[in-house]
Amino acid sequence: MQDITQALSRCANAVEAHLERLLPSVSTAEGEVVEAMRYSALGGGKRLRPFLVMESAALFGVDPSRALQAAAALEMVHCYSLVHDDLPAMDDSDLRRGRATVHRKWNDATAILAGDGLLTEAFTVLASPESHPDAQVRLELITELATAAGAKGMVGGQMIDLSPDRAKLDLAGITRLQALKTGALIRYACEAGAILGQAQREERTALRLYAEDLGLAFQIVDDLLDHEATPEETGKPTGVDSDAGKATFVGQLGLEKARVRAEELVVSAKSRLDIFSGKAQLLREIATFVLERRS
Amino acid sequence: MQDITQALSRCANAVEAHLERLLPSVSTAEGEVVEAMRYSALGGGKRLRPFLVMESAALFGVDPSRALQAAAALEMVHCYSLVHDDLPAMDDSDLRRGRATVHRKWNDATAILAGDGLLTEAFTVLASPESHPDAQVRLELITELATAAGAKGMVGGQMIDLSPDRAKLDLAGITRLQALKTGALIRYACEAGAILGQAQREERTALRLYAEDLGLAFQIVDDLLDHEATPEETGKPTGVDSDAGKATFVGQLGLEKARVRAEELVVSAKSRLDIFSGKAQLLREIATFVLERRS
Repeated sequence: MQDITQALSRCANAVEAHLERLLPSVSTAEGEVVEAMRYSALGGGKRLRPFLVMESAALFGVDPSRALQAAAALEMVHCYSLVHDDLPAMDDSDLRRGRATVHRKWNDATAILAGDGLLTEAFTVLASPESHPDAQVRLELITELATAAGAKGMVGGQMIDLSPDRAKLDLAGITRLQALKTGALIRYACEAGAILGQAQREERTALRLYAEDLGLAFQIVDDLLDHEATPEETGKPTGVDSDAGKATFVGQLGLEKARVRAEELVVSAKSRLDIFSGKAQLLREIATFVLERRS
Repeated sequence: MQDITQALSRCANAVEAHLERLLPSVSTAEGEVVEAMRYSALGGGKRLRPFLVMESAALFGVDPSRALQAAAALEMVHCYSLVHDDLPAMDDSDLRRGRATVHRKWNDATAILAGDGLLTEAFTVLASPESHPDAQVRLELITELATAAGAKGMVGGQMIDLSPDRAKLDLAGITRLQALKTGALIRYACEAGAILGQAQREERTALRLYAEDLGLAFQIVDDLLDHEATPEETGKPTGVDSDAGKATFVGQLGLEKARVRAEELVVSAKSRLDIFSGKAQLLREIATFVLERRS
């Protein structure tokens, strides 16, 4: 685990530095919304999605400075979703990564606007020639990110998560919800590397299947942590989903079977990477990390 | 006025039909957020911004079916901003275009997600080859829209509008606020035509200057209507800004001087179009329409 922890930390530092460059403070009257955007985007975190972008891009020898653009854009979208999800009208969370959420530190209006600003800025970042010299590649990154983040992806998943029928979902329903809500961006993270690397079709498919297994494992582990971990470990409230009467993987399968299912998915995810042989070692290790994480 | 009213109405119908095609209903569990997006985007309205896109594109002989893509994307961004601005955490409006606002018809969470979904979808629309065959043109549309909508544009303007210092703004401060909050998208509307038409630099500059004059006139007229019109005329509450103690153009200049300033700006806006001679007639007439509108 030590190698992967170090690799993840190196990547997180690079992403943090790049986000800092992409989101400079401004001194004009609207500066406060930029500060709220910075607070959210520069607030640390594991930077799992950027790591997946960087490592999947590395399979194809993509210049890391370009992959960093796509990674930062994706992280902006992830952070926007956290800021909006934390709002009182949604999950009503006070704590995120061990700090006050944006609407608690500022107010609801600033949180809505900061989220809107981060989502918008992500597309400026991807459209920039720094992302890739080929305009078609940039457009494909934009189309895929918008699809993953929009009503057919993350926004759609969040809508289901908040719907009155949420409590009654069966295993298939929960699986679909999570494939949209968290899976779509994880899948985008891995496919972004293939897009940047102008990969062969079977290489891109392999990464997509890896991402789908990994994304589902990630969510099952999230449910397990919601049951088993403490707020001190996760940096956010725990026991939330079960308290809210939401159907979860753990609720449907029980703790033991849920853990076994997550382990199976991680084994499957790794097997998807066979065609990349040794080059994909860190992507295999991050799958183990996702399974064993405590936060 | 009759010609321009008819032209505006024809354009609004075309935009409505295109948005209907871009935002089909879905029957899956997340369908409700799509319905809320449709309710907002298909809710009529004058479609002033799409009209500016279509007419500025027509100056350069752009295929209307392509301009319609850019017009629809811009309208999605405009509608997203209305949905979020109407939220209780922001302007707290119950009425928009004579109908219940999205958060009143559904709830705050759905309104936040519907706005997020519309903003995201706009970039899918612009990235599509249907917008323009040249990838560089699509990327420029995306970059300019994201800049106009983000923290350096509309989101920044809304942040200033909600700030504690809002009441104390002087005329220069109000002008800058409105240039960001409403001006940036109006400017984008006109520049989008020039981008689609791969216009000469001086043609694009002319359209930008026209848009800046028009945008400011539009906002001054909005302030005048807030004082003078009835909710039945505007389809939304009136007297809101002055009641909220916000500094406005009317508050700073008085009714008469504000009206004169709007008239001057419309004269100036029209003069910017001289290089287009007779081809820009509808753009001149829409400026008069903006001045004389009652809603």
